[in-house]
Amino acid sequence: MGNFVTVSDIARQLGISHSTVSRALKDNPRISKSTTEKVKKLADQLGYRTNASSHHLLKGKSQLIGVIVPDISLHFFAKVVDQIEQILNEAGYVVLLLNTQESEQKEKKAIEKCLNYRVDGVIAALSIQTKKFDHYEKLLKYDIPLVFYDRVANFLPVPKVILNDYQGSYDATKHLCEVGCKTIAHISGSINLNNSNNRLYGYIDALNDHKIKLDEKLIHYQEEDKESTKQFLNKIFKSHPSLDGLSVFNDYVANYSINILQELGKKIPDDIVVIGFSDEPVATYMEPQLSSTQQVGPKMGKLASQKLLSLIRGDETMQNEKIIIKPEIVVRASTKRKQN
Amino acid sequence: MGNFVTVSDIARQLGISHSTVSRALKDNPRISKSTTEKVKKLADQLGYRTNASSHHLLKGKSQLIGVIVPDISLHFFAKVVDQIEQILNEAGYVVLLLNTQESEQKEKKAIEKCLNYRVDGVIAALSIQTKKFDHYEKLLKYDIPLVFYDRVANFLPVPKVILNDYQGSYDATKHLCEVGCKTIAHISGSINLNNSNNRLYGYIDALNDHKIKLDEKLIHYQEEDKESTKQFLNKIFKSHPSLDGLSVFNDYVANYSINILQELGKKIPDDIVVIGFSDEPVATYMEPQLSSTQQVGPKMGKLASQKLLSLIRGDETMQNEKIIIKPEIVVRASTKRKQN
Repeated sequence: MGNFVTVSDIARQLGISHSTVSRALKDNPRISKSTTEKVKKLADQLGYRTNASSHHLLKGKSQLIGVIVPDISLHFFAKVVDQIEQILNEAGYVVLLLNTQESEQKEKKAIEKCLNYRVDGVIAALSIQTKKFDHYEKLLKYDIPLVFYDRVANFLPVPKVILNDYQGSYDATKHLCEVGCKTIAHISGSINLNNSNNRLYGYIDALNDHKIKLDEKLIHYQEEDKESTKQFLNKIFKSHPSLDGLSVFNDYVANYSINILQELGKKIPDDIVVIGFSDEPVATYMEPQLSSTQQVGPKMGKLASQKLLSLIRGDETMQNEKIIIKPEIVVRASTKRKQN
Repeated sequence: MGNFVTVSDIARQLGISHSTVSRALKDNPRISKSTTEKVKKLADQLGYRTNASSHHLLKGKSQLIGVIVPDISLHFFAKVVDQIEQILNEAGYVVLLLNTQESEQKEKKAIEKCLNYRVDGVIAALSIQTKKFDHYEKLLKYDIPLVFYDRVANFLPVPKVILNDYQGSYDATKHLCEVGCKTIAHISGSINLNNSNNRLYGYIDALNDHKIKLDEKLIHYQEEDKESTKQFLNKIFKSHPSLDGLSVFNDYVANYSINILQELGKKIPDDIVVIGFSDEPVATYMEPQLSSTQQVGPKMGKLASQKLLSLIRGDETMQNEKIIIKPEIVVRASTKRKQN
């Protein structure tokens, strides 16, 4: 397919040489004004276009950026990519979307594609499977600027934009202490996930700094199964009737927890306050609306693409650098307690 | 940037001509075996790569597909793009992601980029603003295959993959009738949106077919403001105490409505059953879990990309064609009623 008009087509129709047409299109002063006008008029009529790819290739620039995403269907990654596309687009670049579906194999192929299309830079988050980083080292060998976001290869000497999960969770628990909670439970994600653990430590340290004794019975680890969270909430009030605060590792599970609490006859925020994490759309489609930590997807996308542009322009050189985002707390009705 | 090894680099290092290297790399029989081996060995060592862009250009194929999305941060569109990328990737194509952020201006620029990069095809959903379709006609002028999805330009002679909102909503209300509901309310999206209206008509026709008299007081139109839905639900039981079914135009608003109903002391599904639309992630993170109509994003992405590939291969020619997806009903706890 692709029915494109070429310089030869124009030359043939006007009965002049290929090189004359080519020069006229570039406003070369060696070509007479009248010929240049004739050429340009016909080029317009026929719909002649310079070929972006070959044009950029001659300059050694494709104006393409490879964006590697573990799973674009997750809201967080979609928000990151949304922002990356917007900023790169404004700077004249086009995004090659490379979705790895959490596969190391697909990530390797994605890098091959970046090399084949001679991208001017790559922004990447690692798939869950990725254990080796040879494919990223290949990019560095070709001097292609690389910036990691969210899920990063710590030892590669490139910039990384990451979220401070620990601080976000610390501030969330601190907020519960400040609205007067004395007994605060935490629902954590899988014990095997780094970000869940960082959020757990944030909770523990905030309790400690507010002189609330840690009680391990108040911590629940939700693995795949939501049912375990239901059982935890059903039982916990028997052993801890004074429970008045709940910090949850994500907004969906916070929504689910609030449903369970309401079934148990608990009023939110009067009987117990609840805070989530990362401000998903559901947070404002709940009653009461959910307090949470800021959604950092857009900010992460912005910082990663600005950093990449700066590397491409040569304003700075690649180096091992961590750009850390500290999420703000978004206070909504679920933690707006009548002060005691 | 982009420190690529060229044919000339190899030629210089081996002290042979550019054309000899070029031929050796293509296994031309005019070049001796030993020279071919020497060339290939050095090419490997130096990390020589054929240039995908220029290679494809010579063949008149970029292997790039433009994917135009109104808002990648909406879960539905992220699911569509996820599937498109997967299928096109398996077929050897790479996706240029063009996010219009609901702007007709950006959509026009996106088409220009598709032309500049000589994409082999385009898959597109219209921005809310788009009123004219000249830019899409330009693609057709260049014989570039085009498939619309979800938001389509009805009069352009190209394939369109769309959701049958009417049928989905009809089946949702039918399901409520079948579990024994006699008084069924509907919360509709804005009266100005096509898909909201189609869902409303599905509700009305299903009631009619099940001999339930339409009562306009049972229909609520939610514009921007969720608060109006809260007021509607707070009042409706006073005038209609027998209300036992609620069909909602989307899952987020269904989640919100269930919170309000629970606040009013209603048990779901025993007192009232609730069904949503389009099976967002929140549907399984509620208690009770929400019945809904199937999420059609993946199916839509699959059908659109398969159609495009078929057009690119020349298996069929472009024509005005509607591929209509009828969503199935996903039954969960929110409508599992003890039969009367």
